[in-house]
Amino acid sequence: MVGKVGYLGPKATFTHVAVQEVFSEYEQIPFKTIPSCIDAVYNEEVEYGIVPLENALEGSVNLTLDYLIHEHRLPVVGEIILPIRQHLMVHPDHADKWEEVKAVYSHPHAIAQCHKFLYGSLAHVPVEEMTSTAFAAKYVSENPGEVVGAIANGLAAKEYGLHIARPNIHDYDHNTTRFVVLHKDRTRAVPFEQENGYKTTLMITLPSDQAGALHQVLSAFAWRKLNLSKIESRPMKTGLGNYFFIVDIEQKMDEVLIPSAIAELEALGCKVAVLGSYPHTLLDQKIPL
Amino acid sequence: MVGKVGYLGPKATFTHVAVQEVFSEYEQIPFKTIPSCIDAVYNEEVEYGIVPLENALEGSVNLTLDYLIHEHRLPVVGEIILPIRQHLMVHPDHADKWEEVKAVYSHPHAIAQCHKFLYGSLAHVPVEEMTSTAFAAKYVSENPGEVVGAIANGLAAKEYGLHIARPNIHDYDHNTTRFVVLHKDRTRAVPFEQENGYKTTLMITLPSDQAGALHQVLSAFAWRKLNLSKIESRPMKTGLGNYFFIVDIEQKMDEVLIPSAIAELEALGCKVAVLGSYPHTLLDQKIPL
Repeated sequence: MVGKVGYLGPKATFTHVAVQEVFSEYEQIPFKTIPSCIDAVYNEEVEYGIVPLENALEGSVNLTLDYLIHEHRLPVVGEIILPIRQHLMVHPDHADKWEEVKAVYSHPHAIAQCHKFLYGSLAHVPVEEMTSTAFAAKYVSENPGEVVGAIANGLAAKEYGLHIARPNIHDYDHNTTRFVVLHKDRTRAVPFEQENGYKTTLMITLPSDQAGALHQVLSAFAWRKLNLSKIESRPMKTGLGNYFFIVDIEQKMDEVLIPSAIAELEALGCKVAVLGSYPHTLLDQKIPL
Repeated sequence: MVGKVGYLGPKATFTHVAVQEVFSEYEQIPFKTIPSCIDAVYNEEVEYGIVPLENALEGSVNLTLDYLIHEHRLPVVGEIILPIRQHLMVHPDHADKWEEVKAVYSHPHAIAQCHKFLYGSLAHVPVEEMTSTAFAAKYVSENPGEVVGAIANGLAAKEYGLHIARPNIHDYDHNTTRFVVLHKDRTRAVPFEQENGYKTTLMITLPSDQAGALHQVLSAFAWRKLNLSKIESRPMKTGLGNYFFIVDIEQKMDEVLIPSAIAELEALGCKVAVLGSYPHTLLDQKIPL
């Protein structure tokens, strides 16, 4: 063990899959909520913290961003993109009886993502919600007397000894979740095995709610040929109608272009904060089916 | 009852609060998932459907947008903005014993939103997750033998006969959730009692992933003085790196400005779809504490 890494738990969630792939040599500590995981990085109980940022199954996107911005402005030092694959799993005692399940358990978002499969193949089977896909798998493993199924990932099947009866039952093949890796020291970029590129993320607060202000801001990037891969407006916590913008630039922080764009924005009256300049990796899920 | 309205259930969630305020004369039908609620509007089992869109507690923002865009392109005919207020509630038998609770139950997002209160006032009390704030309230009402608390809204306290021991324990005063109202007929704008304004929402797909394309798109709005209150990039389901944009224009669809902006975008090679032009209302929560 080379150090400690915290993540949004419980064990065998999709966040845990991302952690296992990237931080296999670290002690992995699950946290119950996104704020408590971020707090642990801030208080140096763990070195790195991994929380979902986008299209999350087990947590909230907005919560991560808002807590980072309003509570602990910790730098992002890496991003992990994980393909989301959902499987129907049953207790091994019922390996050949998946069509006879009396109930299916899972997290509400996973249930929604497998809407077409459930509607098509198990239309009259009641679907019960749990607070995570991992808890659903745990329930099935602990209740061999019931012929029931869980929707969860491959790690959960392995962790709880379940049989994957129907793999890849999610509606969309290209669904992914983005996780951010946090560290108190912004120079500690994650040394990914496969690095797929670099991003720099800025938070920009506009001077006033005027028509075209955002257009003016984007000009600062456009004429420098700085490509933006993401832009998102988020409400300030100061009340309705006040927004700030999160912008992802598709390159590493440099010494000329990005600093001069920031200086230009500040001259226009914007406030700019650099949330991080960090590598990202796209995992293929090597977890056994 | 003048008709049927579907919403993301269960009863006494924040979505239900929004529905009760606006659709008091309708039969109100809870649905288990966002897709099933949208399906019900599409299949005309209900007239209106209400699902969370932003900063949601009981569902996923992304799920609503993605299902609307990829499955059933139903028009948005209204938007409801609800202040989020969380309360600590206990069984009336334990009205004066909230500091002695042995456990607190709630939805993971509500728990995270009351992080400071829990950390400050109930630091050593275990916090248990449930799939909704309403289920947490129900659990407390059904287990008077246990001295436990739930974090939920005022409607849940009323519905399950609980005592609000500590009102307004959420960390941020200005937290709100946005709900969209869907209807098959885009001319059926919701007749809100208090209408706070109009929005037009567009979905714009860029011609290619080139630097400055978004800047060019925003020019079409900027020089017409069309103010954007929100802009958000979302990945297409066709794989990583392909994005479309959701843009909220702060006015009603007109006959000149917005149509000509759309024509200009199409001339640039963009695809544009109008998701809706609809009124919005900001509720003050009249639900009793």
